[in-house]
Amino acid sequence: MAQKQDLLGIEDLSNEDILAILDSAESFEELARGPVKKVEKLRGKTVINLFFEASTRTRTSFEVAGKRLSADVINISGSDSSVSKGETLVDTAKTLDAMSPDCIVIRHASAGVPHQIARNSKASVVNAGDGAHEHPTQALLDAYTIRRHKGKLDGLKVAIIGDISHSRVARSNLLALTQLGSHVWLCAAPTLIPPGIERITRSENPYVHVTSSMTEAVRDADVVMMLRIQFERMSESFFPSTREYCRYFRLSAERLRLAAPDVIVMHPGPINRGVEIDDDVADGPHSAILDQVSAGVAVRMAILCRLLGGS
Amino acid sequence: MAQKQDLLGIEDLSNEDILAILDSAESFEELARGPVKKVEKLRGKTVINLFFEASTRTRTSFEVAGKRLSADVINISGSDSSVSKGETLVDTAKTLDAMSPDCIVIRHASAGVPHQIARNSKASVVNAGDGAHEHPTQALLDAYTIRRHKGKLDGLKVAIIGDISHSRVARSNLLALTQLGSHVWLCAAPTLIPPGIERITRSENPYVHVTSSMTEAVRDADVVMMLRIQFERMSESFFPSTREYCRYFRLSAERLRLAAPDVIVMHPGPINRGVEIDDDVADGPHSAILDQVSAGVAVRMAILCRLLGGS
Amino acid sequence: MAQKQDLLGIEDLSNEDILAILDSAESFEELARGPVKKVEKLRGKTVINLFFEASTRTRTSFEVAGKRLSADVINISGSDSSVSKGETLVDTAKTLDAMSPDCIVIRHASAGVPHQIARNSKASVVNAGDGAHEHPTQALLDAYTIRRHKGKLDGLKVAIIGDISHSRVARSNLLALTQLGSHVWLCAAPTLIPPGIERITRSENPYVHVTSSMTEAVRDADVVMMLRIQFERMSESFFPSTREYCRYFRLSAERLRLAAPDVIVMHPGPINRGVEIDDDVADGPHSAILDQVSAGVAVRMAILCRLLGGS
Repeated sequence: MAQKQDLLGIEDLSNEDILAILDSAESFEELARGPVKKVEKLRGKTVINLFFEASTRTRTSFEVAGKRLSADVINISGSDSSVSKGETLVDTAKTLDAMSPDCIVIRHASAGVPHQIARNSKASVVNAGDGAHEHPTQALLDAYTIRRHKGKLDGLKVAIIGDISHSRVARSNLLALTQLGSHVWLCAAPTLIPPGIERITRSENPYVHVTSSMTEAVRDADVVMMLRIQFERMSESFFPSTREYCRYFRLSAERLRLAAPDVIVMHPGPINRGVEIDDDVADGPHSAILDQVSAGVAVRMAILCRLLGGS
Repeated sequence: MAQKQDLLGIEDLSNEDILAILDSAESFEELARGPVKKVEKLRGKTVINLFFEASTRTRTSFEVAGKRLSADVINISGSDSSVSKGETLVDTAKTLDAMSPDCIVIRHASAGVPHQIARNSKASVVNAGDGAHEHPTQALLDAYTIRRHKGKLDGLKVAIIGDISHSRVARSNLLALTQLGSHVWLCAAPTLIPPGIERITRSENPYVHVTSSMTEAVRDADVVMMLRIQFERMSESFFPSTREYCRYFRLSAERLRLAAPDVIVMHPGPINRGVEIDDDVADGPHSAILDQVSAGVAVRMAILCRLLGGS
Repeated sequence: MAQKQDLLGIEDLSNEDILAILDSAESFEELARGPVKKVEKLRGKTVINLFFEASTRTRTSFEVAGKRLSADVINISGSDSSVSKGETLVDTAKTLDAMSPDCIVIRHASAGVPHQIARNSKASVVNAGDGAHEHPTQALLDAYTIRRHKGKLDGLKVAIIGDISHSRVARSNLLALTQLGSHVWLCAAPTLIPPGIERITRSENPYVHVTSSMTEAVRDADVVMMLRIQFERMSESFFPSTREYCRYFRLSAERLRLAAPDVIVMHPGPINRGVEIDDDVADGPHSAILDQVSAGVAVRMAILCRLLGGS
């Protein structure tokens, strides 16, 4: 039997890996438009969704993806898990593994938990978001969405705007997009950018740019990706007030006019309307936000098939 | 592709629509008695149960119905939904819709939410209860149960007794039953009947009668439908005490003797024993309460098939 | 139609029943190692998991078991059930029963609830743990695990150590193992052994031994089964302190050396590391703890098939 495969972070993927996933996802997006949205590829496989953080879209997206591949999908939420009875995470992982699942999809508030689960499980592990570390399936569905709209990834200017320092979405996208040849502009108030962020990529990376000027980030951008202000994740006060934040870093229609004429606007959701993005932008002709959600199901189907060897 | 169909309220259904659903439900009730309770009619369809209010029987009933039709069923409860992260309902609807479900079954504490979801979704939307407004699948399963027992609906005297003003069950039943030719007697303390209730039906309706005398309502009734006292839904004190309420509006065996000899007793559940209904009535030979539950699965299968074009 | 069968306690099973379940489980354990972990045996059957107490491993185990047999599995947790709206348990049982499930798997904090459900349901009922009373599927998976390792059950010395008086696991294992010919040594502080425990078995049972000396219990044991200290279930203080408890009743590597050279160590989980068991024992070569979890899925598949007549 071949070695099991995990998807723990974008860091582990080559260019070829990423492109293979995106190509495979295209056929699954087609499937979702037909009358029978189901194939038998993962019949007889068991997928466990182990979510220690609440999530509608990511959990539902994985559940839909698994079921459309005919896998048996089991949801476990943190609150009903044995961890609340004092079990260690490693014991939870080993216990679930002993039930012979083929895949464990894990979200947790602490960075590194998916790696720990992966080391203690024969099942393939997919990181569905670990703390402020990585969220690789989000980055892959974002890359898919951009390629769908632009036909390519290399040479694009992508602005990622918002709370960079708390965002696993920003981190995974930075890794994926720069690897695929996009120029990424990270834009936030200075307190919301981790020092040395340019160096988290594989080499001192000429594709990464940092700015606290939204004008500079958006100007001529092909893609503007807004991040969610995660009030629930901030333990200190990183900016004086929401009102002040909005003044400098909210995407308005006026600011968007600085971007390329065919710019697309992205957001991982759920969006805070009027905080990080205005209604007319979120709902406007440039918005690709719902395309991202659709892409999510297709990309996750591609990932599950790849890891579990669906033929 | 044909226009998608929703089931938002009894108001939207013609007599023919209602009877077609009841007829179709009969074959599904048969199926539930056999050894293999499953058909492939909705294989490859995705049904999302989106419940913002807790519910055992309705959610379970829809889940059983969907699975017995071979649909993929996804449960989302309000507490784990993104709405708790500040997302608007419309955004939740659009997000779920982007995952290409075929049907969204929605329960919400506010009237009109299913209509809002329906306007923002390509999926068929089923109202599983919205505030004090409508609960159309309950009215359809009630009509089914009555027809099963009485062989017909027109010309019957149906007494609906309890907290009329807070009850979506009463409202949907009033609409369905008067349309099908039953005479409906609404009975409650004056504070629990909304003024002008007679006029909520399509025309000034000679089939609607209002009384605060339980004797008058029950006398010669073919059907006595008790409503649940929804302590959790009442923000003010509408009656002096539970004890006083019970004295005037509880269905006892003695009161039931006023009804037609072959009367059936109904209740949407969960029942408050000794509050709105006595044990010997709830469990007695006239009770059709559990028939309603069985009918629920069959009627919801018929509805899902009708909306999703199961062939 | 044949009479429905329940699994409410080990008390109801003959030797032949138990051995038939263990034999059947062997083929299902094989299935879990293959690429397609699914058979069609229970296609078209509906299994309801009704858990009034939180549980990861038992609920997940039953859900995996049901799905791998192609049954439709519906989860209901106590918190979202109608019982929280004042419905009686019997009414909940009858309501669910009216939806024509084939099996209801029930866990509840009170002894006897599964029996009450069974009397009010045409579905087969499986007791997944009722208060401090019985947990028969746990005892069967434990017997399976022991037989897997030892090739037999009769004549073995099995030490069950811990909070005997609060443990349904201890009680069900005591019944199953003594019936199958094992000698069971119950070991706990005197306050944690119910008086007269020897007499709960079918006759004054020469196979039951009680001691408060861990040395006596472990010496030459073929199996050492540690119980979980259930802090959440203890309403009074039964021992002076956790530290004191650990000193006398924790399984350390040193103590384990008193046992037979090929002893296996068991625990129903979740384990409290350093409280009732040391890391090097839980993770050591004698540990069969994860085998128990794997056995759980296989044994529950065997039980579901047996009760629901999967052919």
